[in-house]
Amino acid sequence: MNAERFRAHYRIRCPADQVDQRAAALAVEQSVEMPPTAIRDAVVLRDVLATVATIESDPAGDSHRVVLSLSVAATGLEAGQLLNMLFGNSSLHDEVTLLDVELPPSICDALPGPVAGAAGIRERLGVPDRALTCSALKPIGSPPEALADLAYAFAVAGIDLIKDDHGLADQPFAPFAERVALVQRAVARANRETGRRAIYAPCISGGPTRLAEQARVVHDEGVQMVLACPMLLGVPSFIDAVRLAMGVPVLAHPAFAGAARIAPALLLGRLFRAFGADATIFPNHGGRFSYDRETCLAIAAAARTTQGTHRAILPIPAGGMRVERVEEIVADYGRDVVLLIGGNLLEAGDAMSERIEQFVARVEACTGPQAGSS
Amino acid sequence: MNAERFRAHYRIRCPADQVDQRAAALAVEQSVEMPPTAIRDAVVLRDVLATVATIESDPAGDSHRVVLSLSVAATGLEAGQLLNMLFGNSSLHDEVTLLDVELPPSICDALPGPVAGAAGIRERLGVPDRALTCSALKPIGSPPEALADLAYAFAVAGIDLIKDDHGLADQPFAPFAERVALVQRAVARANRETGRRAIYAPCISGGPTRLAEQARVVHDEGVQMVLACPMLLGVPSFIDAVRLAMGVPVLAHPAFAGAARIAPALLLGRLFRAFGADATIFPNHGGRFSYDRETCLAIAAAARTTQGTHRAILPIPAGGMRVERVEEIVADYGRDVVLLIGGNLLEAGDAMSERIEQFVARVEACTGPQAGSS
Repeated sequence: MNAERFRAHYRIRCPADQVDQRAAALAVEQSVEMPPTAIRDAVVLRDVLATVATIESDPAGDSHRVVLSLSVAATGLEAGQLLNMLFGNSSLHDEVTLLDVELPPSICDALPGPVAGAAGIRERLGVPDRALTCSALKPIGSPPEALADLAYAFAVAGIDLIKDDHGLADQPFAPFAERVALVQRAVARANRETGRRAIYAPCISGGPTRLAEQARVVHDEGVQMVLACPMLLGVPSFIDAVRLAMGVPVLAHPAFAGAARIAPALLLGRLFRAFGADATIFPNHGGRFSYDRETCLAIAAAARTTQGTHRAILPIPAGGMRVERVEEIVADYGRDVVLLIGGNLLEAGDAMSERIEQFVARVEACTGPQAGSS
Repeated sequence: MNAERFRAHYRIRCPADQVDQRAAALAVEQSVEMPPTAIRDAVVLRDVLATVATIESDPAGDSHRVVLSLSVAATGLEAGQLLNMLFGNSSLHDEVTLLDVELPPSICDALPGPVAGAAGIRERLGVPDRALTCSALKPIGSPPEALADLAYAFAVAGIDLIKDDHGLADQPFAPFAERVALVQRAVARANRETGRRAIYAPCISGGPTRLAEQARVVHDEGVQMVLACPMLLGVPSFIDAVRLAMGVPVLAHPAFAGAARIAPALLLGRLFRAFGADATIFPNHGGRFSYDRETCLAIAAAARTTQGTHRAILPIPAGGMRVERVEEIVADYGRDVVLLIGGNLLEAGDAMSERIEQFVARVEACTGPQAGSS
């Protein structure tokens, strides 16, 4: 038995006089899931049973940071089972939040990590240092031709990354194969005209059968990037059928992820990066969602700080961003960021092209080679 | 464009004077995800944009049941995209809970539903009407031989369903292929001795590649049932690679599901059943978890009430149940239930066989042919 351990950090809300018992119960729940007194195998007790490493209580005494020491072997070095050991049954305990995980090299090395990371995406785009721009093909229900026209308009006006709305799946109004072929060709045509290298990221969805069909389209059409929702696909399927089978950089979308009682910086930052995201979309503060600035900066930090051999990835603050906020977003995140603006460009109507150009120009002005340090 | 609609019920917590605006924003978020004023395609506005059907506020005025009318076409009749339309982005809104979905025949028919259901499991077991018994192979870390011995002891003593602990994946201490072969043979040997038909349900896990390998083992060893965690595998992968590819009845486990801000009766009852579960494990009240009795009874009701062509499935109240509670559990759920007791049997130590026999005898006494109506 491999006796290696790793540490996971939880918050437990309970009265101070119950925390020792609750922490010990959490250790049992997340490992052997039976009374340790009934275990006769000494190796299991020594190497598999999780143990409580530390407990730190807040001054009010009703919230406690509990660090567990968990068995690496019990994860089977597989992502789904890792999530199970971290937060399978305890996801059913309302008073428990998963705050952080210290991923050891053994686990980091077993998870794929990004294929390209921030640097690789910049290289593919030919944009070494300014902030990157991104917009979304919307609304769902539009026919493929309309989405291709919109993609062309984005690419011609200078948007770097053009992604499908995450609601574009394989619906009859815009079937995946037809949509991806048309949009990919529209962006390629724009690139020939501009001399730039805008990239289209279609939305990947469904079970292994559909994912295999979509992988064929991605390959056949020369698609260079995809968008995927790890929590809708399932993390093991995201790794196998998207990150590994498709082989192109992945933009991770947080759909269905926000409900998990897992710290956003851990799930959308550290873990999505470990599972293979090259960039992570998250709801920026001040938009349509409720994450505060501190949470958003923590996600960006988790995307960039050292994590085994996993490259740094790009944070993509999004969710109701507007062109007027470009400088503020850059001030928050620096140049190594993707600014994603969707609805605010589209709502300009006949003036959409001008607004896209404003967006691109403001990003260039505050982070391009002519800009001051920012 | 297919103009068919279906309805989803949410709870929004907000001041009464904001609910109209919040409900309209939810409808946009869960469909077109852009300002409707910027949409020029009349068909999209008419057929794809979600609309607010009704709003009912509680007397205090800070909690509101909002019913949205959603586009069936936007789901692409695929389970992952259905979840996306129901709760993709709104999972990121802490004040929103998904309460219920009215699944129309078009969506029901597109989802696989159970392969066997309650009646099919009873038929395979040869147990027409008493309550069923189940126990779990534990703890993780045990070698395959020990798990096989335990399975044999359960089967000989009269347990109907013997499932892997959901923490048993494909770890080096008990690799899937080796473990499943040994346990399946141990249960078959017990069945030959007893003349009964106990069934072993190994735990399925991982991405499509591992799932395909596990499907081969399931097939080669004649495994008749599997255990799987839909929220760890990902629902689309659960459907494709477990329910459809393996073709045997499935026990669904709630690991990683409890954190979702989705009503448990909807997720563990109605939706898991639609996705293909034949029985659904949930944390019963009074055990190690915090669901109350009303929540648990609602899960059982969702497992059984009419739902298109989907057969009724078996509720499995679990999570720290004890032999002393057999009669009480049967009083709650009736005979058409699986009683899952794990740790309480194992902690009997040398008296385990006697405790298993007590468990089986008490279930027989209160629900078997000799019992009064219960």
